[in-house]
Amino acid sequence: MTYTAEVLVYLKEGVLDTQGKAVKQSLQRLGFQDLEDVRVGKYIQLRINAENEEAARARAKEMCVELLVNELIEEFDIKVVD
Amino acid sequence: MTYTAEVLVYLKEGVLDTQGKAVKQSLQRLGFQDLEDVRVGKYIQLRINAENEEAARARAKEMCVELLVNELIEEFDIKVVD
Repeated sequence: MTYTAEVLVYLKEGVLDTQGKAVKQSLQRLGFQDLEDVRVGKYIQLRINAENEEAARARAKEMCVELLVNELIEEFDIKVVD
Repeated sequence: MTYTAEVLVYLKEGVLDTQGKAVKQSLQRLGFQDLEDVRVGKYIQLRINAENEEAARARAKEMCVELLVNELIEEFDIKVVD
């Protein structure tokens, strides 16, 4: 069966987010003074053939560790849906 | 009070995702033959000063429409947490 793993990749706290900073400045210049902070990460949808949900999750985790995530500076969450 | 709006931005179905295609090829070359498809989007965390959750959500939506999302080719979801 094919499962969709939704992966969120985001910078660890304390890691400077230059992209987020740029977006924040742009939004504030547009008048959004109520904006305190912006952090920008990635949202990756993986369609995986697997026996079951747990196998799909394990496989998605391997993909994160091997390629998608830089664990020195990033963290990730995985949610598996059908 | 300050709320966090978690925004997912992703390409509409049918829109070619060149970044996703490149990631898919890289993962398959690493041996992930069970991977069917990859789509890459953005995960944006907005810290917003607002009266309540609904006001924070409305404000996040304005930010999406005015800057963060290209509605011709992208869609978005907003989830507000404390």
